[in-house]
Amino acid sequence: MQVDSFMAAAIAEAKAGLAEGGIPIGAVLVQHGQIIARGRNKRVQEHNPILHGEMDCLFNAGRVGSYKNTVIYSTLMPCYMCAGTIVQFKIPKVIVGESKTFSGARAFMEAHGVEVIDLNDATCIDMMEGFIQQSPELWNEDIGEL
Amino acid sequence: MQVDSFMAAAIAEAKAGLAEGGIPIGAVLVQHGQIIARGRNKRVQEHNPILHGEMDCLFNAGRVGSYKNTVIYSTLMPCYMCAGTIVQFKIPKVIVGESKTFSGARAFMEAHGVEVIDLNDATCIDMMEGFIQQSPELWNEDIGEL
Repeated sequence: MQVDSFMAAAIAEAKAGLAEGGIPIGAVLVQHGQIIARGRNKRVQEHNPILHGEMDCLFNAGRVGSYKNTVIYSTLMPCYMCAGTIVQFKIPKVIVGESKTFSGARAFMEAHGVEVIDLNDATCIDMMEGFIQQSPELWNEDIGEL
Repeated sequence: MQVDSFMAAAIAEAKAGLAEGGIPIGAVLVQHGQIIARGRNKRVQEHNPILHGEMDCLFNAGRVGSYKNTVIYSTLMPCYMCAGTIVQFKIPKVIVGESKTFSGARAFMEAHGVEVIDLNDATCIDMMEGFIQQSPELWNEDIGEL
């Protein structure tokens, strides 16, 4: 199933980040049914506070022009930084792995007309629950809760 | 006057960006009365859609821990990407050069408790008016209006 393969690619990014000692959140940008960019949280790896998974993915996509035919997949519900970027760049649709471990900015995106689908995926939930339990300070730093 | 010197530093970043062929928006992050990072829009220079002036500044600041004692100065009212970042990282205060050429996400930031001060500065207004007149397509790309 196409949706699953895109989320699987985002999960693969998250797992690669975890293997690097990073925060396990991944994203892919899809346009016309094809993945055009992949990204993962790089706070730890690149000492970069703005590279959440979605932001790294949009950076890797480069200057794509209009985002009107794109869908962004993320293993986790976007925070306000990533949600604000999605709203500003008019990405019409967001598919997330889960929002159980972080409720994020769903209402804000929906208020701006973004369609948000939450897959409530067990793999994504397990991955984040494990990470937050092991590295609560790093997680709190990543979402500005210090 | 201290406020003026910080905005002057943000304007210097914006002018440096313009001289590089970029979009003239600059920012500085101030903590305990000192500039700890500077940044400018690098969409053109680095082919990077997420490096608005404020984002480049926060990238350059690195992992600062809590932002609770910081103030961000920007030559222009933040868009939703930058505003979302300010809200997520709990930067309590934003001082902008102007919002005449771009109204941005002031209400969103204020709704989340961020103090926003607009200096309505003629230098900042002139700089952006000139740029938008000369490069309307680049400006529309930068704010997702394609």
